[in-house]
Amino acid sequence: MNLPTFKILAVSAFCLAASLTASAQIDMPGLRRLNSPQINPDGTVTFRLYAPQAKDVQIRGDFQKKDVKRGDRTFPEPFNQPMKKNDDGTWEFQSGAVPPEMYSYIFIVDGVNVPDPSNSFCIHENNIVSSRFIVSKEKGDAGWLYSVHDVPHGSVSKVWYHSPAQGIDRRATVYTPPGYDPADASKRYPVMYLCHGGGQNEEKWQAEGRTCQILDNLIASGKAKPMIVVMPNGNAGQSAAPNEGPVDGKRPQQPRVRQTKDANPLIFPDLIAYVDSAYRTIPEKSGRAMCGLSMGGYQTFYYTMEHPETFGWIGLFSPGALPDWGDPTPAVEQYRKNPEIMNGLKKVFDAKPSLYWVGIGTYDGHREDIRGLKQLLEEEKYPFFYMESDGAHEWKAWRIHLADFASKIFR
Amino acid sequence: MNLPTFKILAVSAFCLAASLTASAQIDMPGLRRLNSPQINPDGTVTFRLYAPQAKDVQIRGDFQKKDVKRGDRTFPEPFNQPMKKNDDGTWEFQSGAVPPEMYSYIFIVDGVNVPDPSNSFCIHENNIVSSRFIVSKEKGDAGWLYSVHDVPHGSVSKVWYHSPAQGIDRRATVYTPPGYDPADASKRYPVMYLCHGGGQNEEKWQAEGRTCQILDNLIASGKAKPMIVVMPNGNAGQSAAPNEGPVDGKRPQQPRVRQTKDANPLIFPDLIAYVDSAYRTIPEKSGRAMCGLSMGGYQTFYYTMEHPETFGWIGLFSPGALPDWGDPTPAVEQYRKNPEIMNGLKKVFDAKPSLYWVGIGTYDGHREDIRGLKQLLEEEKYPFFYMESDGAHEWKAWRIHLADFASKIFR
Repeated sequence: MNLPTFKILAVSAFCLAASLTASAQIDMPGLRRLNSPQINPDGTVTFRLYAPQAKDVQIRGDFQKKDVKRGDRTFPEPFNQPMKKNDDGTWEFQSGAVPPEMYSYIFIVDGVNVPDPSNSFCIHENNIVSSRFIVSKEKGDAGWLYSVHDVPHGSVSKVWYHSPAQGIDRRATVYTPPGYDPADASKRYPVMYLCHGGGQNEEKWQAEGRTCQILDNLIASGKAKPMIVVMPNGNAGQSAAPNEGPVDGKRPQQPRVRQTKDANPLIFPDLIAYVDSAYRTIPEKSGRAMCGLSMGGYQTFYYTMEHPETFGWIGLFSPGALPDWGDPTPAVEQYRKNPEIMNGLKKVFDAKPSLYWVGIGTYDGHREDIRGLKQLLEEEKYPFFYMESDGAHEWKAWRIHLADFASKIFR
Repeated sequence: MNLPTFKILAVSAFCLAASLTASAQIDMPGLRRLNSPQINPDGTVTFRLYAPQAKDVQIRGDFQKKDVKRGDRTFPEPFNQPMKKNDDGTWEFQSGAVPPEMYSYIFIVDGVNVPDPSNSFCIHENNIVSSRFIVSKEKGDAGWLYSVHDVPHGSVSKVWYHSPAQGIDRRATVYTPPGYDPADASKRYPVMYLCHGGGQNEEKWQAEGRTCQILDNLIASGKAKPMIVVMPNGNAGQSAAPNEGPVDGKRPQQPRVRQTKDANPLIFPDLIAYVDSAYRTIPEKSGRAMCGLSMGGYQTFYYTMEHPETFGWIGLFSPGALPDWGDPTPAVEQYRKNPEIMNGLKKVFDAKPSLYWVGIGTYDGHREDIRGLKQLLEEEKYPFFYMESDGAHEWKAWRIHLADFASKIFR
């Protein structure tokens, strides 16, 4: 062994040892990284967990569902499936063939949820750290659209901006498209304001929503115009995602119950003013889209009624638009007897938006509410685009909605 | 109940229901959020996990350590401690009083590592998703420095830049300080290039390293100058962190073993050229610092020797600087008999850097190697700053090193 080679090996050993020592604080003896999830050529997926002492290990994921009857409808839902213990203490589960998509799963070890330790792709959501994987079979399928490819990439930033309406700083995630140069005064970009759902925050669209990957890939394929995407924190009672906001100092004064419509004037005017001052935007109706999922769709529904000249492109993804969720009156009648909605929609459509987009997942529990909205818009002869996509009230549907809406705007 | 109140409650219920439905894909029946970790007024911490079916639950964290003898030295190390099962199926552990710091821990449920499901602050590192918490007693202590406060905040961005040396796009995390305005040509900022360790990537300094919080807080206290901090991916064989780089297309051609010193010319010249073109920098020696932990300290050690006029401020945090880790020769002699190092250091110090900073944790297994470097620098009468901080080869030490180095540069 000549000296240079030996030196390289020694250095390599140092780096590895350093890395192991660094993590030794909480490293476990016997920790082993398995090939999990292993996506097989036939489209099946093998999951593995090393747990020799465990009595019972199950897996629950959205890659495999069973039909559950609720009322007169049937919903495909994830369910717990037993894993099989091998002689070496490894538990294994093999799925059937799964179609292209981004999936989430957890192991359940003696009743406790455990993310897959062999899979570094995981997201904390609603008190579960769940593991993720993406299946793609060919260019253009859902898994391809949600993956990082060797195409020009935009940047994603976590920014703080001042909100005079609340007297605090608020946080937003901002995607700027490939080629965006803040110093180039000659070029301006349209802006999509992309709002999260209830219980979520400014991190979610870029994590579970795969916004940056979807935009990079659509733009590279010529299927979307280069645009800025602003993903605000839309919770009036919170300045930033959990663990990201100040632990002391001034706090938003709005009580939690006033999130949603009443939050709109506290959040969006300041946000739009900031974005138009800090980025090279097209600061007019033709260059602004507002859209959002669930609660964010509710915010979009009402904010665009109050500001019909601000946004030329409007997108409601599984929106929480029904005036009263507890009222058994059919949705279309509920909308119709609500003057705020009827007058608001008239204002919106009198202003002739370039696109009014409404989408809902086929298996969303709120599907009938949105079909009622569709019926109303049809009866009123308002022009709109309607999509009933695959998926329930979940990210699977919202990624489809985002990709479709993004491909139709600013054209 | 009047109508407006009822409407607000109904909307609130929708948002909550929507949130629960959204997560129902993998939600577990019986999932409950506990108060964990609960930081008590006396400085103790209570941890809780609901696991009625588990036979054995332990906790392992760096908030409590026991001394382990290795050779003639003693190291405080984390260890597994049993948790106690209550009648309601909740397991509980109460620590002694813990000093201000950022801590990590996991539960071990029947032998399997589990992050705390009640704690949304968690980080995936080295095949463990571990939970985190910060203890702070007063302004200025370590926990305060690592927390988000109501002070002006910088922005943090994930950017891609083209690397002609490798023919690929590479990723970096960039912190810009409060008030940084890319459109304001009248103001320029110095840049710290902050390099990660072996097995790490461009995500780590801003996650475990708390770089953005440390810089925000130091700048707000007047203890650091406003500066840009660039945290590159420093692995030649990788363009971005796992799950963040392209799944197809061109890949870096450098084999894994050539990471570290041989990676330097592939990474840093292109990075510096990009940063000086894309940001409002002070593109000269007085406005550039290079520093890094472990492998990143190694990269800094060698790159600054080859480019003594590029950086005015140099920081080695627990650096992997020893030429041959397997050689039993005392460190100072190893450095001395290595002409590359002796000539390189002469070039560095002939160029009169404003600061040459060397730090190591008291409990770092490589402490003697760095004491050897200290001895060499003293014998050669090179001016440098030396810190032996608390901590092992771990983030606890590196956060201390970063804060001290950041407070001394660009002055």
